[in-house]
Amino acid sequence: MVTTTDEREYGNLIGSDKVEGTAVYGADDNKIGSIERVMIDKLSGKVSYAVLGFGGFLGLGNDHYPLPWQSLKYDTRLGGYVTGVTEEQLRGGPKFSNEKDWDWADSATGRAVDDYYGVPVA
Amino acid sequence: MVTTTDEREYGNLIGSDKVEGTAVYGADDNKIGSIERVMIDKLSGKVSYAVLGFGGFLGLGNDHYPLPWQSLKYDTRLGGYVTGVTEEQLRGGPKFSNEKDWDWADSATGRAVDDYYGVPVA
Repeated sequence: MVTTTDEREYGNLIGSDKVEGTAVYGADDNKIGSIERVMIDKLSGKVSYAVLGFGGFLGLGNDHYPLPWQSLKYDTRLGGYVTGVTEEQLRGGPKFSNEKDWDWADSATGRAVDDYYGVPVA
Repeated sequence: MVTTTDEREYGNLIGSDKVEGTAVYGADDNKIGSIERVMIDKLSGKVSYAVLGFGGFLGLGNDHYPLPWQSLKYDTRLGGYVTGVTEEQLRGGPKFSNEKDWDWADSATGRAVDDYYGVPVA
């Protein structure tokens, strides 16, 4: 006996290893990349950022682009995430070439992403 | 310039691919398994469950044990998660042998885990 509330509570779970690799679509339903990993707050369990890779799809090489998690919405029809961020915004956004260049422990790192995409400070 | 608030907001981020594989310790600091994946709510971005594997460590074979995320606390000293769940509780808890046996889309699945570990219904 499944109610609408049950579906919301339990029916939308996805494994982290399945999120990794899930496609991300722009507002026009074009695939603009895929999720390489999500950044999880170790203490609260809240997903803060998704790190997108493009595999050269947009000529962006192997750079990695963190997006605030709340800028992505899961679209059951597309089977992936949709974002209102444009290709131009992505190209101009914070990125890193390899993990060593990126220090998530530095508060300025996440803040730069939030600032760029206009996420309000909590 | 890092403040305590900044540390909490940005300093505790970990990649999902790093959580996968992180050790889980019982209350006595003994390693009781490791996280194979976390289950993320696609809509809210909240981590609901961690799926533990044991790699035969406790003679539990290749079974997979979902634990409510809130039953795990990250311990910076141990560099892993600590849970108050005992080995006996784990052995008697909900488990699955392979992913096909486990239907997260069925509300009863997550509920069985919550009920077993005494998580209050939201």
